[in-house]
Amino acid sequence: MDNATVSPRPSGRAADALREVRIQRHYTRHAEGSVLVSFGDTQVLCTASVLDKVPGFLKGRGQGWLTAEYGMLPRATHTRGEREAARGKQSGRTQEIQRLIGRSLRAVIDLSALGERTLQLDCDVIQADGGTRTASITGAYVAAADAVRWMIERDMLSESPLRDHVAAVSVGMVGGQPVLDLDYVEDSACDTDMNVVMTGAGHFVEVQGTAEGVPFTRGDMNALLGLAEQGIARLVQLQREALA
Amino acid sequence: MDNATVSPRPSGRAADALREVRIQRHYTRHAEGSVLVSFGDTQVLCTASVLDKVPGFLKGRGQGWLTAEYGMLPRATHTRGEREAARGKQSGRTQEIQRLIGRSLRAVIDLSALGERTLQLDCDVIQADGGTRTASITGAYVAAADAVRWMIERDMLSESPLRDHVAAVSVGMVGGQPVLDLDYVEDSACDTDMNVVMTGAGHFVEVQGTAEGVPFTRGDMNALLGLAEQGIARLVQLQREALA
Amino acid sequence: MDNATVSPRPSGRAADALREVRIQRHYTRHAEGSVLVSFGDTQVLCTASVLDKVPGFLKGRGQGWLTAEYGMLPRATHTRGEREAARGKQSGRTQEIQRLIGRSLRAVIDLSALGERTLQLDCDVIQADGGTRTASITGAYVAAADAVRWMIERDMLSESPLRDHVAAVSVGMVGGQPVLDLDYVEDSACDTDMNVVMTGAGHFVEVQGTAEGVPFTRGDMNALLGLAEQGIARLVQLQREALA
Amino acid sequence: MDNATVSPRPSGRAADALREVRIQRHYTRHAEGSVLVSFGDTQVLCTASVLDKVPGFLKGRGQGWLTAEYGMLPRATHTRGEREAARGKQSGRTQEIQRLIGRSLRAVIDLSALGERTLQLDCDVIQADGGTRTASITGAYVAAADAVRWMIERDMLSESPLRDHVAAVSVGMVGGQPVLDLDYVEDSACDTDMNVVMTGAGHFVEVQGTAEGVPFTRGDMNALLGLAEQGIARLVQLQREALA
Amino acid sequence: MDNATVSPRPSGRAADALREVRIQRHYTRHAEGSVLVSFGDTQVLCTASVLDKVPGFLKGRGQGWLTAEYGMLPRATHTRGEREAARGKQSGRTQEIQRLIGRSLRAVIDLSALGERTLQLDCDVIQADGGTRTASITGAYVAAADAVRWMIERDMLSESPLRDHVAAVSVGMVGGQPVLDLDYVEDSACDTDMNVVMTGAGHFVEVQGTAEGVPFTRGDMNALLGLAEQGIARLVQLQREALA
Amino acid sequence: MDNATVSPRPSGRAADALREVRIQRHYTRHAEGSVLVSFGDTQVLCTASVLDKVPGFLKGRGQGWLTAEYGMLPRATHTRGEREAARGKQSGRTQEIQRLIGRSLRAVIDLSALGERTLQLDCDVIQADGGTRTASITGAYVAAADAVRWMIERDMLSESPLRDHVAAVSVGMVGGQPVLDLDYVEDSACDTDMNVVMTGAGHFVEVQGTAEGVPFTRGDMNALLGLAEQGIARLVQLQREALA
Repeated sequence: MDNATVSPRPSGRAADALREVRIQRHYTRHAEGSVLVSFGDTQVLCTASVLDKVPGFLKGRGQGWLTAEYGMLPRATHTRGEREAARGKQSGRTQEIQRLIGRSLRAVIDLSALGERTLQLDCDVIQADGGTRTASITGAYVAAADAVRWMIERDMLSESPLRDHVAAVSVGMVGGQPVLDLDYVEDSACDTDMNVVMTGAGHFVEVQGTAEGVPFTRGDMNALLGLAEQGIARLVQLQREALA
Repeated sequence: MDNATVSPRPSGRAADALREVRIQRHYTRHAEGSVLVSFGDTQVLCTASVLDKVPGFLKGRGQGWLTAEYGMLPRATHTRGEREAARGKQSGRTQEIQRLIGRSLRAVIDLSALGERTLQLDCDVIQADGGTRTASITGAYVAAADAVRWMIERDMLSESPLRDHVAAVSVGMVGGQPVLDLDYVEDSACDTDMNVVMTGAGHFVEVQGTAEGVPFTRGDMNALLGLAEQGIARLVQLQREALA
Repeated sequence: MDNATVSPRPSGRAADALREVRIQRHYTRHAEGSVLVSFGDTQVLCTASVLDKVPGFLKGRGQGWLTAEYGMLPRATHTRGEREAARGKQSGRTQEIQRLIGRSLRAVIDLSALGERTLQLDCDVIQADGGTRTASITGAYVAAADAVRWMIERDMLSESPLRDHVAAVSVGMVGGQPVLDLDYVEDSACDTDMNVVMTGAGHFVEVQGTAEGVPFTRGDMNALLGLAEQGIARLVQLQREALA
Repeated sequence: MDNATVSPRPSGRAADALREVRIQRHYTRHAEGSVLVSFGDTQVLCTASVLDKVPGFLKGRGQGWLTAEYGMLPRATHTRGEREAARGKQSGRTQEIQRLIGRSLRAVIDLSALGERTLQLDCDVIQADGGTRTASITGAYVAAADAVRWMIERDMLSESPLRDHVAAVSVGMVGGQPVLDLDYVEDSACDTDMNVVMTGAGHFVEVQGTAEGVPFTRGDMNALLGLAEQGIARLVQLQREALA
Repeated sequence: MDNATVSPRPSGRAADALREVRIQRHYTRHAEGSVLVSFGDTQVLCTASVLDKVPGFLKGRGQGWLTAEYGMLPRATHTRGEREAARGKQSGRTQEIQRLIGRSLRAVIDLSALGERTLQLDCDVIQADGGTRTASITGAYVAAADAVRWMIERDMLSESPLRDHVAAVSVGMVGGQPVLDLDYVEDSACDTDMNVVMTGAGHFVEVQGTAEGVPFTRGDMNALLGLAEQGIARLVQLQREALA
Repeated sequence: MDNATVSPRPSGRAADALREVRIQRHYTRHAEGSVLVSFGDTQVLCTASVLDKVPGFLKGRGQGWLTAEYGMLPRATHTRGEREAARGKQSGRTQEIQRLIGRSLRAVIDLSALGERTLQLDCDVIQADGGTRTASITGAYVAAADAVRWMIERDMLSESPLRDHVAAVSVGMVGGQPVLDLDYVEDSACDTDMNVVMTGAGHFVEVQGTAEGVPFTRGDMNALLGLAEQGIARLVQLQREALA
């Protein structure tokens, strides 16, 4: 991004700058892994629970499972959202996000090395300012890593079934310019919004790009993927530091 | 309670001692009132939202409404609880608690002085260690007070419709002894569990006593109510300090 | 209540007078216990069913269970209420009441002496005029006792697992005066409404007091509990006569 | 049926005999029409409520509506049935029956003469011994007639919108013999079960015949319809006597 | 029908004429039986699936089960109907129809000769022009017969458990005249609508007649049943030809 | 793909070959647009309905709306899937797909030029063999175009609000080779599955790539996007021919 001053972002960040990212481990007491992850003002509590059961379709097959659920506190957002528990069902958006988190984490875990257990991830948004799904994936990885350590300490596992890191970031075309890690203001105004999930080795797990306004070109896409690679490399480094 | 050493509580507290109580205002950014209340390891995020609408049965009557919803993050507890949004309905316990919070707060607000608005309280338990409903009421009052101030600052109201404080505490018979502010260990073992809601003026709004084991006597009840009066007086003082 | 003429009740009853209470056993044919209980114009059909199963969490533990459900016919009330089966869910109020009935009855039964069976109570309000939950508890006890007798007659049990009676009544502050067993008119106008559940031995199982209007004092509470003790003693006597 | 002794019915009734039918008006206090109808041991409480509203598709068209709901108390039957409100939905059987009741009653009412009101019928089975839907229709007609009188007394209507009586009975082939008004024992064993709804004028409103075992012939059908005509004529006479 | 020219039907058909009926087997690839049945413009896709399981109440009893589900594509009709899956429940009408299809097919199958398997029928209306339930039954029989052949070819069964054909047609009184196989225009205008289900042997399985307008007489009923017998005989012949 | 013989696809297609695509317009009678689209053995019925209403959030704003729903007949698949209407909710997968269809079509329509109307698309899978969502989008465009013509013919619109074509195809890495338009066998075995939606002008509307097995590289992504561009160009040409 050669000239961020030409088209400054609302936050004043450079086009290729992440927001301040914080990863607080052991945030609550009961979960085997518990992480508060912040991407700027977006705060998500990610817990990892070790459950001594697997879904019906896996019973007796000697392997484990990993799944995720996602929620948002009603007033995590600018205007209050309806409480999904009161409404009696999860929105399509919620289900889409929790399916994405589960797939992303399953891409880096060897389920056959987990035993007949489920690693249950819960990502609950305390405060939202854009990027809640990417923060969720990034934080859930650290919570999962802590739950794995908890099992190793108790001799439930001899080594980690996690084969690599996984982290995620959003990129988008805002005002014709590709930018990294959109906040809510940018997210509302962007032409293209893309969520990218990658491993520590720099390979892609998911790419979900959507033209909100004008459709995007191959050139746009290349620029966005380049930004994402750079941002995720930095997030993986922050995960490593948090877990050190 | 003159002799706490005879029957020490698991926490080492005196029979008439509250846990450490903290009331953090402005905990999240978007809500008009946002309070993290802690009773020891129990932590509840209470937000108050000002909504420009009232339920159907109040439309056009020139008065306001106050209502509350309650939830618990799946891993707020020792073992993971099912997510109510995924399950598709709120449990009877959840509904009972949110109805109690709403009634308690409505007891101290003059709805006719609120305008055609709803004060929506959301109490979400981040971490549970007993007493989540009493912490919710105590914290929700402060969130509501902040939302009222927000309206006054914007000239939406000229004076506060809150006529008094309201706070709540649990008391119970544990091992034959009346104790104040039960934590989870005591709550699981008690013979009687009583939740008491009172105003700043020292009057009762709700008394809900349940014999979990042996039924209780008038004498037990008097001892419990005495403890509750004392504990709630202290909680109201802490609310005042937090709002000062 | 020394001077009921000063503040006469709408029904003309003395402040400490119950409505006419009737307990009709064997009201319907199929249930193991079937009781129509009337508190004045409030009529509730209470049936007790003996089921050869226990909930999942008790399987194989050699003990029984007791649970209750509550419903109201749509036109039991002055204006027709929505049918909960058509609406697709039970209201918070319904769930609150059926949980209360279950807890109250479980307080006087030795579940380990019941065998792996469930005593299922169903309380259905045929006509409502205030006090449906207290009439339900009082009638459900008699239905449960009949179902126990039915099991003893068939040598399924050698002795009754019921350790005591349980009955319930409402009390409240109406126009500044404590009164016993509120009917609908009083219930709608009262400042405080309290439901009290007690055993035959005169101990408390549940006390649920709510300030509908002005909060209540310790003195009010003492007066109300005194009235309730007296009313419940009379109800237990009527249960004994019905079962004689 | 010239020779009932050849193939006696479990109840000892002649093949063309109804069970004892009772129609008790003003059974409960609040509803505009309230009838307990008994066909032997089958007892259904039928209430008719006058509602000052019509469904959306009729608003502003100056005509009324009539609709019905049906339910069964959980222990109306030999073994306890699940409570539909707790289960969260009405069964297909329940919906089928309440649709039948509504259609049957609408066949004899002039909705354009009812004003913009709904006549809401609720049929709740207190005790079941076969024939609950036919008892419901027969009793609901009387409840509706009482609700119409209530409106006429209050000058809400000047004359009755009911154009005729409507009543219903079951007939069936049991052990090769056509019989009238099946009780539960016969209903469980019959080869063909037919519910017939007719007007006071002797015309058909509904005929629903189902072969539970062997399919039936035109001859069977003629015999069954003959029995039904005779039974319904008697039921209409009993309705007239009850309303006299 | 002596004089169809006096009161011509909208379609120009004679009173006793079926619409053009087509039965296309092997319409889709995956199902064990798959039939597109057309009654004029009404088109229903009927599939029969062989499932290696039975409902809980039949487990271990060595017999099979047959059940049916019914649906309508949202735009099968003149105006778009709500999608039941999106709405979250099946309408009463849908449940009524799928129960009817299941009962009709069970009337001609020997479930004890099916093994512990379920024959699952799915009838989905692609285009509706009246008579969707009768077309469904008629087509579902052919799909079931194909699924039975599929099982015989694989030595899962040695002979067919189907004891007879079953087919269905609607008849009705339109403008005072009995007519066969009503299309949508006639169905909307008729006084009486009757659905008749019969076996290949000419016996009745179901008769469901409803007076939509004026009640009908025994004479009407006889005329309608006569038309239905004739129409169903023709449909059974078409089934035989399709299966030949 | 220069050397398809090295790694032949199960279907024998070249790596860059679409399956046989058919677009049948006017497939059913009632809908304003009705298209059966086939991608090989995958068959989807796409209807477009013109509704004279808009969702609440758009009322009175003088613009239209476009939305989509998606469903699959229970036996469209190899093994029967549960009917979502019977189960009482749409799966996460279903919601994800219908949201994708809606977004894709909205990308090429000028809603402000549609008037206060909703274009409701329904995509129902009759037979599934992989690629149901991409076939749905491709067919839904043609159905929408027909519905627009229907409106223009009736002078409801003077010109089309459709600004461009939109079509979709899947691409994936199968056995290390990038291939176009995966069928079910390939879809089950692929390492990466990517759905691409593009406009007639060759710009991207959605890109959704998921690593089912090993994560994918930038090089893989480039190859896949190249195949998709080529396939979609062909699909747009087929849409033009169908609409000619």
